[in-house]
Amino acid sequence: MKKVLLATTALVMMAGVANAEVSLGGSARMGMDYDESRASDKIRAAYRTRINLTGSAETDSGLSFSATIRLQDATTTATTNAIGVTVSGAFGSLTFGSSSSAAELAVGDIAGVGYGIIGSEGTTSINDATLIVYTYTAGSLSVIASAGQLGTDDFSLGGSYSANGLTVAAGYEDNGTSKATSASVAYAMGDTTVKAVWMDNEEIAGGDNQIGASVAHKMGAISMAAYYQTTDTAAADDVDYGVGAAYDLGGGAAIKGGFASTDGNTTADLGMTFSF
Amino acid sequence: MKKVLLATTALVMMAGVANAEVSLGGSARMGMDYDESRASDKIRAAYRTRINLTGSAETDSGLSFSATIRLQDATTTATTNAIGVTVSGAFGSLTFGSSSSAAELAVGDIAGVGYGIIGSEGTTSINDATLIVYTYTAGSLSVIASAGQLGTDDFSLGGSYSANGLTVAAGYEDNGTSKATSASVAYAMGDTTVKAVWMDNEEIAGGDNQIGASVAHKMGAISMAAYYQTTDTAAADDVDYGVGAAYDLGGGAAIKGGFASTDGNTTADLGMTFSF
Amino acid sequence: MKKVLLATTALVMMAGVANAEVSLGGSARMGMDYDESRASDKIRAAYRTRINLTGSAETDSGLSFSATIRLQDATTTATTNAIGVTVSGAFGSLTFGSSSSAAELAVGDIAGVGYGIIGSEGTTSINDATLIVYTYTAGSLSVIASAGQLGTDDFSLGGSYSANGLTVAAGYEDNGTSKATSASVAYAMGDTTVKAVWMDNEEIAGGDNQIGASVAHKMGAISMAAYYQTTDTAAADDVDYGVGAAYDLGGGAAIKGGFASTDGNTTADLGMTFSF
Repeated sequence: MKKVLLATTALVMMAGVANAEVSLGGSARMGMDYDESRASDKIRAAYRTRINLTGSAETDSGLSFSATIRLQDATTTATTNAIGVTVSGAFGSLTFGSSSSAAELAVGDIAGVGYGIIGSEGTTSINDATLIVYTYTAGSLSVIASAGQLGTDDFSLGGSYSANGLTVAAGYEDNGTSKATSASVAYAMGDTTVKAVWMDNEEIAGGDNQIGASVAHKMGAISMAAYYQTTDTAAADDVDYGVGAAYDLGGGAAIKGGFASTDGNTTADLGMTFSF
Repeated sequence: MKKVLLATTALVMMAGVANAEVSLGGSARMGMDYDESRASDKIRAAYRTRINLTGSAETDSGLSFSATIRLQDATTTATTNAIGVTVSGAFGSLTFGSSSSAAELAVGDIAGVGYGIIGSEGTTSINDATLIVYTYTAGSLSVIASAGQLGTDDFSLGGSYSANGLTVAAGYEDNGTSKATSASVAYAMGDTTVKAVWMDNEEIAGGDNQIGASVAHKMGAISMAAYYQTTDTAAADDVDYGVGAAYDLGGGAAIKGGFASTDGNTTADLGMTFSF
Repeated sequence: MKKVLLATTALVMMAGVANAEVSLGGSARMGMDYDESRASDKIRAAYRTRINLTGSAETDSGLSFSATIRLQDATTTATTNAIGVTVSGAFGSLTFGSSSSAAELAVGDIAGVGYGIIGSEGTTSINDATLIVYTYTAGSLSVIASAGQLGTDDFSLGGSYSANGLTVAAGYEDNGTSKATSASVAYAMGDTTVKAVWMDNEEIAGGDNQIGASVAHKMGAISMAAYYQTTDTAAADDVDYGVGAAYDLGGGAAIKGGFASTDGNTTADLGMTFSF
């Protein structure tokens, strides 16, 4: 293969076409993962490449459009994913595409661990087919609303506010048969970030509470994270926890590894990641 | 995602490799569509992104090669499409790929309406699997021949001639069991273009005539189009018509909408489109 | 489609992001092929486009990462292929991806013929699902080891050494139930290259030997190649042979054609290829 080498963020513009472009970027990882629940081959080699192709345009009045197609190539399957189309301007940002719900987007997850994000960290959404997302940001305040296809009942609201390192967020989801309410608090103190997430979810059998917390800390090239999360069910309380570490290799690459226990099942991974 | 921003039409060349390149471009749209024939959810949100990757090369003697792969990401499915490979030179242009028939390419469609092209405007091809297309252009005259895979019966001829704003075209299709003949006349007067298309198609049950006409007009940033088309069948005459408008936002983006009636079924859409 | 024309090997870099990039390149072909074994349509038109998207990054300490996704568009199908992720440095090169076995990589094939590589030239691997490949190169010596997914039995070793135009290589494959040993010798004398490949393969029914030889010669813009190969089986000795020629059109394009006989079945092709 002959090569077209394009430094990311390189900007090549010609007079008259300054407002239409295609950008390329992505990430890849390779490593090993362990899953106690697999009948055999508990340790496996794995890799994944994602390349995003994003077309964008800007109108004379300053309205911005973008559309992304994601190519994904993983150990067992290669897929082309529907990321969606976005228009944004002073009115905010409107996306038609495959997305998390407004509540998930606002409340976010606690810190994940592992080179491929193992274990279970974050709340359980009840909006499985979000198609439309509207976001309005005014300074430190973000308000998000989302819905499934018109005619379906998926609907969600989320909001977040940040000040002095503290971010508080809340979310609401409804899918026509059940509802979920969620909230999170995150606080960044220098190189340390702590976050707690809570959800009251009518769809979790026999119970309805998820609560989790994480701490992430950075020391030079080394980053560490740990999380703990419980989910109440009728039978028992599920307990999930994990710890992970990353070493920054520079140039967008890192070595990452993690260990997680999800309702008693142990997973672990170790590998290299890079973005481009 | 880090970004490689590439202004479309930007040309980056290095000595010695001036004749081999990859180009990226595409279009996207997002909006709403209405279809009276849907049992439920007659109004839906929809989007589609298409990104074309085209590799090209030019030989020392001036022969040009190009090959295109199209990535498509729509509301429900993401696909990678077979566009084909083309060689062109003084002899004309020869494409192996997934294409419309020569007749369709020459005769063309009447004006379409809507942000996603709704309704039914244009003739019905009987060549469903065109693989090979040859085009020769000499000034205002274009001659096109197409065929399906060798050993199949799909074959088509088309030709068009343009002068002083007037374009006349004719086409012939044969698929081994039936034949179709078509013709079109288009006339552009300043910002107004009128076009009429006629087809005699042995495959249309109980009848064999399609005739349609359209008018498209441009006033500054606003474009409007309307079409009317009838298809004779044994049972009845199908009547299709539609009207649409577009507002150019600059930078390759537009707001477009349309209303169409196809054999009594009403469809409509409204959305934004952009190219990059 | 608007065009982003990027000369291959063009290098656009900005300070601070010099070590992360996406490269595009590929190849395409169009032509005709003949296969005596087809019940009908022995002659067919065919085309294929391949575009590779490769993301890469380099760490501060000089470790290189790359990841490739390949888009392929052929006469009947379009696919996205899993090529894999590679990390390389002073320690050598480690790839997780879809690959040939170490033995195949080291021993290589005898010269192929045809614009689409017809016939049968090269040995038969018994490692069908190679996932991990490690390569270490020191001057003229290359050592390669490969394995399937952890927990499977696919394993292979290969090595090659080149000096004064002579390349010798050997390989070993094991899949848990059978083994194969292979070797090759190649010698380049100016514009002529001769190569012989031998394999002892326990999986070939009733026999276990493959032996083949090829000669390739270049005269100005014209290249020619021929090969002869036998495979012992219990029933009979399969004999495969082929001859081919190519004419370099410059700019990365060529006209190529070939004729091959594979165990008595005749195939032939003729077409154009180009890379970009």
